[in-house]
Amino acid sequence: MKDGCVFIGGEYVAPGDARMSIFDAGFVWGDTVYDVTSTWGGWFFMLDEHLERFERSCAGFRLENPHDRGDMRRILAECVARTGLENCYVKIQLTRGVIESQTRDPRLGAPAFVAYATPYAWIWGEEKCRNGAALYLSGVERVSSKAIDARYKNYNRADFVQARFEAYDSGCDDALLVGADGALTEGPGYNIFVVKDGAVATPDANVLEGITRRAVAELCGEEGIPFAYRRVEPEELGAADELFASTTAGGVMPVVRLGEKPIGNGHAGLLTSRIQSRYWSKRADGWHGTRVDEIRDAA
Amino acid sequence: MKDGCVFIGGEYVAPGDARMSIFDAGFVWGDTVYDVTSTWGGWFFMLDEHLERFERSCAGFRLENPHDRGDMRRILAECVARTGLENCYVKIQLTRGVIESQTRDPRLGAPAFVAYATPYAWIWGEEKCRNGAALYLSGVERVSSKAIDARYKNYNRADFVQARFEAYDSGCDDALLVGADGALTEGPGYNIFVVKDGAVATPDANVLEGITRRAVAELCGEEGIPFAYRRVEPEELGAADELFASTTAGGVMPVVRLGEKPIGNGHAGLLTSRIQSRYWSKRADGWHGTRVDEIRDAA
Repeated sequence: MKDGCVFIGGEYVAPGDARMSIFDAGFVWGDTVYDVTSTWGGWFFMLDEHLERFERSCAGFRLENPHDRGDMRRILAECVARTGLENCYVKIQLTRGVIESQTRDPRLGAPAFVAYATPYAWIWGEEKCRNGAALYLSGVERVSSKAIDARYKNYNRADFVQARFEAYDSGCDDALLVGADGALTEGPGYNIFVVKDGAVATPDANVLEGITRRAVAELCGEEGIPFAYRRVEPEELGAADELFASTTAGGVMPVVRLGEKPIGNGHAGLLTSRIQSRYWSKRADGWHGTRVDEIRDAA
Repeated sequence: MKDGCVFIGGEYVAPGDARMSIFDAGFVWGDTVYDVTSTWGGWFFMLDEHLERFERSCAGFRLENPHDRGDMRRILAECVARTGLENCYVKIQLTRGVIESQTRDPRLGAPAFVAYATPYAWIWGEEKCRNGAALYLSGVERVSSKAIDARYKNYNRADFVQARFEAYDSGCDDALLVGADGALTEGPGYNIFVVKDGAVATPDANVLEGITRRAVAELCGEEGIPFAYRRVEPEELGAADELFASTTAGGVMPVVRLGEKPIGNGHAGLLTSRIQSRYWSKRADGWHGTRVDEIRDAA
């Protein structure tokens, strides 16, 4: 199953066979939460942190997860093992399920759990994730957490898609969005970091609380780099010495251009590169890691 | 096919067989637009108005619809005919499709069109849609149209679901949401109208521009009732003489309680009942109607 393995309806199937009802409220109402982790060299990264966040997302959406932590660990390890791949993109999701009642009462849903492992993905392609991408400061506003809480990772992402279209229109690779309060938020699937005078800052509100973002904070601590979660103004982007982004599907990723303006000298910044190489070398060593085989052997 | 007929992948199938890939970006990114019309007594209601709005939704989401107006009319008529039902809930939707590229470029999607007819649905059940429901003014903020434009009918509806949970918690049937600007917006799938001193008003911004809402405006015109699209303050709800809502799946629906406060005498208001009965009697007579058979015969 080199192209992936999906756990759905209690069975392990190929991605091409992973199908759901078009009536699932998880689709029709955007009533789905999910999480994404990865394996690298056979190590899950921060697996419990991801599962914990997923559980918070389920609770935040009032979705009852039929699987406990141990179940999920075993299912994910099995999905990865069946791919035969060392480096995987690994997802879990929970949809509301099909609701038969005409009244569409979400309390009547029987939530459906799906998990899968596919080959490791790089959100901008590997080259750009490693060497740098161009981002566009979008005019599309980020959905407010007062409406749909960004801390609960979910599929209501139409703002991201339209922002991405804008970015492509402008010759950029991806987008950054500003919230209703005028503060910088995040991009489609990644957190953003500004580096100025040797210090790193990332938005503290209206964003997904990224697990890789947390890893970046830890790496900065180890390296003695000042790090802050705080309100970040969009204007700080153009004035930054360096910019970088973080996500499970790409790691620590340099941003080398904002719109038409090169950031720094237009190449990955020194501090960014330091954090990035530390991130990947530590991952290869099993940092915050859980062996796929270890979970399977214990099962 | 008494429980419905779905057109998917170029075929007509039973609802239980209507399945989609879990990888469709229409699901994963909320990148889907849709529209809902109905048949009543064998008449489609305002069919072209719905198809036109659907086309605007597609364009707004930059989704290319493989079917033109004539195609859609024929497909919908066929779906309805195969159910053998006079009164149907009729939906069309367009998803982004499965995107193979790791970069997740929405421009690479091959949008997938789905249509179906199922038995006519009443969003609060028939009795409450006809005689009145209790609504709850939710603390969940409505997603801003600056983030995801509410005029493009779409599946990013997690704010609605959470508002609905709140409503149930409070012993109400459904919810109303306020926008970031403090103005009243809409409920999950319906527009709201306040009646005060014989005049009707409905929010003009941050809402779906309902087709039934347009029909209500027309009925008010015929009846000589002053009607306005304008900013409506949430405070106007409690102070109203009457409240009602409109949607395809329920028509003109009295609201008889807001939270714990009865509206008027706690029964459907006189003006509301006048518009409601006019709406249903005109529909039975084929008002703004297109015969299902007529479309099939012309095909």
